[in-house]
Amino acid sequence: MDKVNLAEKLTLFSEHWSPRVVGELNGQYVKLAKVLGEFEWHKHPNEDELFLVLAGCLVIKLRDRDVWLEPGEFFIVPRGVEHKPVADREAHVLLFEPVSTLNTGDVRSDHTVEDLQWI
Amino acid sequence: MDKVNLAEKLTLFSEHWSPRVVGELNGQYVKLAKVLGEFEWHKHPNEDELFLVLAGCLVIKLRDRDVWLEPGEFFIVPRGVEHKPVADREAHVLLFEPVSTLNTGDVRSDHTVEDLQWI
Repeated sequence: MDKVNLAEKLTLFSEHWSPRVVGELNGQYVKLAKVLGEFEWHKHPNEDELFLVLAGCLVIKLRDRDVWLEPGEFFIVPRGVEHKPVADREAHVLLFEPVSTLNTGDVRSDHTVEDLQWI
Repeated sequence: MDKVNLAEKLTLFSEHWSPRVVGELNGQYVKLAKVLGEFEWHKHPNEDELFLVLAGCLVIKLRDRDVWLEPGEFFIVPRGVEHKPVADREAHVLLFEPVSTLNTGDVRSDHTVEDLQWI
């Protein structure tokens, strides 16, 4: 039951596409991720997923358009919607999603993180 | 299914202690609030509540201590824990909490907002 300083937490890891848990409430996790490059196309059949950009620029590719996110902007990918996050330079992102959410959704790849780490 | 720019949304209202809804996912709302002065002591018996400060400084008073939050810091008030938010100067706050959460929890006052407004 301590406060969380997002900038401090972001100094604790450097791996890309490897979200860390920084909070839990009402069956949801608050996560931080550093992202760079292209992620897989995937979807979460039963979970909506929020991306809030803290630094850098993140593009959420959807099948019919691209959503460009800058710091202070968020986008909610509704359950079942295919998406592919892409960042040309490193971006820092806060995620809000159910505890059950797997980062690669319905896909398994080298990016899949089965054992989430708290920081 | 549009992105949300927090700074733009914050220009759309000025009332204090009157949270606006800016997103919904997995039965949770994302809200923005402008706060100034003292709020009531209250608790949410069945809901955890996250406060992320975007601007200014917010103090979450608990019965045994004060939690000082600056921009980029969040605190989760667990369900059932009495708390009293206080801001000496205007602060801007992002809230994550269940759709069912009433801002004054188990208390009714002039601050109680029954009909939440989306912006």
